[in-house]
Amino acid sequence: MTDLLRLRPAATPEMMAVFDDVATIAHACAFEVALARAQAAHGLIPDAVARTIAEGVESARIDPAALAEEAALAGTLAIPLVRRLRAQLTGEAAQVLHRGATSQDVADSVLMMQVRAAHPVLVIDARRVVAALVRQAETYRATPAVGRTLLQDAMPVAFGLRLAQAAAGIADALEHLEAAVARHAVIQFGGAAGTRAGLNGQGAAVAAHMADAMGLGTGAPWHARRTGIAAIGAGLGLLIGALGKLARDVSLLAQNRIGEAQEPVVAGRGGSSAMAHKRNPTGCQVALSAAVRAPGLVASLLAGMPQEQERGLGGWQAEGPVIAELFLLASGSAAAMAVVAEGLAIDGAAIARNLAAAGMGEEIGESAAIIAELLGIEGD
Amino acid sequence: MTDLLRLRPAATPEMMAVFDDVATIAHACAFEVALARAQAAHGLIPDAVARTIAEGVESARIDPAALAEEAALAGTLAIPLVRRLRAQLTGEAAQVLHRGATSQDVADSVLMMQVRAAHPVLVIDARRVVAALVRQAETYRATPAVGRTLLQDAMPVAFGLRLAQAAAGIADALEHLEAAVARHAVIQFGGAAGTRAGLNGQGAAVAAHMADAMGLGTGAPWHARRTGIAAIGAGLGLLIGALGKLARDVSLLAQNRIGEAQEPVVAGRGGSSAMAHKRNPTGCQVALSAAVRAPGLVASLLAGMPQEQERGLGGWQAEGPVIAELFLLASGSAAAMAVVAEGLAIDGAAIARNLAAAGMGEEIGESAAIIAELLGIEGD
Amino acid sequence: MTDLLRLRPAATPEMMAVFDDVATIAHACAFEVALARAQAAHGLIPDAVARTIAEGVESARIDPAALAEEAALAGTLAIPLVRRLRAQLTGEAAQVLHRGATSQDVADSVLMMQVRAAHPVLVIDARRVVAALVRQAETYRATPAVGRTLLQDAMPVAFGLRLAQAAAGIADALEHLEAAVARHAVIQFGGAAGTRAGLNGQGAAVAAHMADAMGLGTGAPWHARRTGIAAIGAGLGLLIGALGKLARDVSLLAQNRIGEAQEPVVAGRGGSSAMAHKRNPTGCQVALSAAVRAPGLVASLLAGMPQEQERGLGGWQAEGPVIAELFLLASGSAAAMAVVAEGLAIDGAAIARNLAAAGMGEEIGESAAIIAELLGIEGD
Amino acid sequence: MTDLLRLRPAATPEMMAVFDDVATIAHACAFEVALARAQAAHGLIPDAVARTIAEGVESARIDPAALAEEAALAGTLAIPLVRRLRAQLTGEAAQVLHRGATSQDVADSVLMMQVRAAHPVLVIDARRVVAALVRQAETYRATPAVGRTLLQDAMPVAFGLRLAQAAAGIADALEHLEAAVARHAVIQFGGAAGTRAGLNGQGAAVAAHMADAMGLGTGAPWHARRTGIAAIGAGLGLLIGALGKLARDVSLLAQNRIGEAQEPVVAGRGGSSAMAHKRNPTGCQVALSAAVRAPGLVASLLAGMPQEQERGLGGWQAEGPVIAELFLLASGSAAAMAVVAEGLAIDGAAIARNLAAAGMGEEIGESAAIIAELLGIEGD
Repeated sequence: MTDLLRLRPAATPEMMAVFDDVATIAHACAFEVALARAQAAHGLIPDAVARTIAEGVESARIDPAALAEEAALAGTLAIPLVRRLRAQLTGEAAQVLHRGATSQDVADSVLMMQVRAAHPVLVIDARRVVAALVRQAETYRATPAVGRTLLQDAMPVAFGLRLAQAAAGIADALEHLEAAVARHAVIQFGGAAGTRAGLNGQGAAVAAHMADAMGLGTGAPWHARRTGIAAIGAGLGLLIGALGKLARDVSLLAQNRIGEAQEPVVAGRGGSSAMAHKRNPTGCQVALSAAVRAPGLVASLLAGMPQEQERGLGGWQAEGPVIAELFLLASGSAAAMAVVAEGLAIDGAAIARNLAAAGMGEEIGESAAIIAELLGIEGD
Repeated sequence: MTDLLRLRPAATPEMMAVFDDVATIAHACAFEVALARAQAAHGLIPDAVARTIAEGVESARIDPAALAEEAALAGTLAIPLVRRLRAQLTGEAAQVLHRGATSQDVADSVLMMQVRAAHPVLVIDARRVVAALVRQAETYRATPAVGRTLLQDAMPVAFGLRLAQAAAGIADALEHLEAAVARHAVIQFGGAAGTRAGLNGQGAAVAAHMADAMGLGTGAPWHARRTGIAAIGAGLGLLIGALGKLARDVSLLAQNRIGEAQEPVVAGRGGSSAMAHKRNPTGCQVALSAAVRAPGLVASLLAGMPQEQERGLGGWQAEGPVIAELFLLASGSAAAMAVVAEGLAIDGAAIARNLAAAGMGEEIGESAAIIAELLGIEGD
Repeated sequence: MTDLLRLRPAATPEMMAVFDDVATIAHACAFEVALARAQAAHGLIPDAVARTIAEGVESARIDPAALAEEAALAGTLAIPLVRRLRAQLTGEAAQVLHRGATSQDVADSVLMMQVRAAHPVLVIDARRVVAALVRQAETYRATPAVGRTLLQDAMPVAFGLRLAQAAAGIADALEHLEAAVARHAVIQFGGAAGTRAGLNGQGAAVAAHMADAMGLGTGAPWHARRTGIAAIGAGLGLLIGALGKLARDVSLLAQNRIGEAQEPVVAGRGGSSAMAHKRNPTGCQVALSAAVRAPGLVASLLAGMPQEQERGLGGWQAEGPVIAELFLLASGSAAAMAVVAEGLAIDGAAIARNLAAAGMGEEIGESAAIIAELLGIEGD
Repeated sequence: MTDLLRLRPAATPEMMAVFDDVATIAHACAFEVALARAQAAHGLIPDAVARTIAEGVESARIDPAALAEEAALAGTLAIPLVRRLRAQLTGEAAQVLHRGATSQDVADSVLMMQVRAAHPVLVIDARRVVAALVRQAETYRATPAVGRTLLQDAMPVAFGLRLAQAAAGIADALEHLEAAVARHAVIQFGGAAGTRAGLNGQGAAVAAHMADAMGLGTGAPWHARRTGIAAIGAGLGLLIGALGKLARDVSLLAQNRIGEAQEPVVAGRGGSSAMAHKRNPTGCQVALSAAVRAPGLVASLLAGMPQEQERGLGGWQAEGPVIAELFLLASGSAAAMAVVAEGLAIDGAAIARNLAAAGMGEEIGESAAIIAELLGIEGD
């Protein structure tokens, strides 16, 4: 049972790999190993037991489909996973596996490992968009073009100014996302009620050790304090929106009778099943589709914030799939628009023709200075 | 590459099968076969050609993963699928395959076939919820219990009244959904620009023939008129919300110190990875999680409505995955709450104890009459 | 303290009057009078007392600003209003005023009176849009024009086909809304915990009598069953989306270099503070702005559905302002698009010129038949 | 025509004053005066003309209701406002008023002046919440209490830990909001097409001078780059969500049979129109209601990001009312929860009684250390 036809067109394979079952299981296993090693490092269990746990966990073969069935029944991934891992172990190793942790510790920490993995994958493509726009904005920093407001011809602008504005918006959103990930992608480790009980007062140290092993930041437990998750989601929503702005503009420029810019020709892309002559703005379509879907997803994260007491019922369980979907959509959008921006076919003759048809002169005001300021914003 | 750990906990296997790759490909193939047969039936192509197409399509073996890659590139499923199907054919059959149709015709009609398949699957579980609530509401139609408003003890109600209200809400939402599906799950068949060109004036007849073969209603093309899709989504949002209302109440009743009702004990469900003694309301969790996610998804469908001209860019491409997700969430919620409602463990002693502790009498007003009225609403 | 600059540009004065303070107070007073009269009619209080209440309430002068302050403090409108009304009365009239009712009964019934008042106001403008589109669709049912898909020239369509599709979408949404209002705009009357206690078994009869006086449908109490509110909101969201579709298309057609249609010239509308020559599609702007805002508002209504027990905390209190805002936005959108549709300046020469420039012929397939089918849909 | 009954219960009078008509007109006038003075400062117009403009603008008496009518027709506030202001002037002053600016420059800059004014008003109340929680968290940092997960008794926690977590969430959201306001509440000044044309190359200097006068940051024009607006909205959504978390917990603690904490008694607040004995958590109701409404509003801002070209159609026009509504809701929530937090009536006996009833010991793990860490987070 696969859902690739539904999921793949909106996401990159690299991002899908970050959130697929194999990765999820690997991260969950890494959590349990990190927990054992951290406890050993702080004298809570013998080193040998931690090693046994690590070997047992790493040699376990887990069938995702069977585990998914059990997780659906249990209401949490950790319960059936720990049961399966424990079955690989005996004696003290079996007993102390997962000790001090609770299901949400696993789920939240796994999600944050995926956030840490997903973020650079996304940034690569998003920066490709920005870099390509910067190049084009510089090239066209003094090219007069029709500026359009409220979908009507208005006054001349430098053609590069629109591209620079788009670049600045994307770069700005990236900074918001970067800040949110850096600040909030931290370990969740609090135990049954978030007090780090049963760890002999070493809970913070154990958490820090684990966080280091898992590539996460450290901090106090946040099981029912979901500001961070929602902030990461908002950052993704901003990025998808900023990419959507670029896609809107490219698709409008690509209209027949306007024709100032086109998506590049990519083999296999942009055709029509009914009209061989068409050149559809398929990259923009991916980005605009993501921009339709993202706001509602961010709303879901915000709606889930008022969670009950020490661990909510329904709220946080909704977040993981939504964060995954936002990263998937962002990746699809960024990758599509990277191809669009890098290969954008700008038609100088059409730009000039439209300008003349609009009866506009070449007065583009301080376009070049604004471009420089915007690209400076991007560069810092 | 599978995503079962993310998708399965929120959905039933039956519903996942409705929207998985195998089903999607089968429906798309069914569209092409129905198109050929309908054209033959109306004299646009020879019967033999239609039979050849049907045989070729039905014998085709399509790898979902490879097709998903091609669809992601092409921006549409139909282009690579038709190419693959055409490769199975020669001569006139290869030429006329898909003739008169366009990519969105396939995508929208496939989606509606999935809606038609998904709806009864969902209704079974939702009706189980209603039926179980009706039984319990009748049983407890005269049992005084604490009525609570603004999370505070208020005045006595019949315990069954709350259940009857929940039943009526779910039944009402089901009627909305049923009406939307019956009205809007119709074939999309308009061709390149929605005019049914090239069909010798037989377009409406061909569409009706196809619709019949695919189990869909018939009607004018709706490629850029998305009211129906959004209405179906709204119906799903209403149902998920109404199920969430029940889950909210059951989980509040199940609180320690209140204890008037509990989810049934289900082997493997509701445990805690850290606390063996706990009995978590895991079914309610599934329903409440769905209720957090659904509103944003419905918003996405509404946001996509102002689509451009004869076929939008980004708007309708966003809808298929969102409709699928809403059905998946609704199925998970309904199935979970069916188990909860059917096995709801009501504690009469706790109900009486809380009533006494609240210093309330047994005056439950017209509870029984209101229950009867509500269940009448449900029954029609 | 007024907020007209923020509220008025998105709404009509007629609709603002439906939801303003004067109307709200009048409806709340009508509720209390209807309650007294219904109790008298069913022998629960003397006729003379009901008359005294009616006279006292109708002669009361309530300062909205002061009442709003008190309502904000109390958390409900009814408490301070009833206190003020009671101060107008003495003896039994003062005692029995509001008896059998609770705050939410007033709030919900008032909201539904406003829904009943708002709906026909909205329908008038929305039907103007449909009627104007129908006329234009018939006029242009055989005029070949460029059909555009994915924002690219595709194949010819009848110019009227696009208008007919828009008309059908709006008419369809209107039917959804109509059905939801007819079904769900019913009295809420349940008393403290929704049991209609203290009415001597006459609760249903009292409710029916009140509903009749208030112009509402009757039915069981629905204080914590919010499917109806959400369904009405969804209907408004559909209508705003369908109007947005028309606005999107008109604004794209009005682009320079395309120029196939323009909003009518309206004195004082569509100008630019910087560019005297511009003719902005300001009506479309109002409709598109509403279409950006509505989906999130509908999501809020759906998110509020899982309300707690007999009366939720926060959920239903959120709904009144959201329903009002949806009606306000819908009214603004419909009124703006009525002007646009009725005065739409279609440029046949531009249509022909674009068709020629696209190298398209005049084959518009079954456009005329589809138009007829769509307008038939509208007509029934 | 006022809407106080709908708007006031969700907002503070102080915040309503920030966004009401008087403030909006004053800010718009301030923009025009700042523009004239800045042009004079940079030699673009004579000082005397700027003084004349300032005097004329400041002496103008604008009727909000009439202006709102004109703005609704024109589609923008600036056009009728400038016309009215110009009528106060003659000669060069009348000619150069508003020169170099466009309607959106006024609208966006006014909105940002309101953001700058609203933010500290909001912060005062939000910090009151945090400060009160910090005090209580310290007081109860070693008080064992029932920790509850998934709405079930789980393990003991320090009662103060839950409060400290809530404080940290609110403080964290405040930091997000603060950062967004500081970064994005900048002047918008770009002129007709965003190029700062016609200012003799002095546009950036004029903008900086104006920004200083208006209390805004400076930067490149952002008329179609809406990342900042959406980021501010997201910050508000985070804050409302974090306040909602506190409200959820307080209202659950206040339930009968639990009774560990209660909202303070406030004269006129929390009563019931039907039950005199009730003590409703009305402050929590305000906050939870805001938390239901905010996510959809943030979604609207994100949905509006893909704006067209140099000035969108519908997207940015939707933002102002939405930002205002988010600030209004946030203010109502923060003010209500400030009263709740400052007067929270904690019942130590109930806490102990519930702990005993749950059969729990007093092992609260590292609660105190986590509290210290959380409050440190808050303090920096």
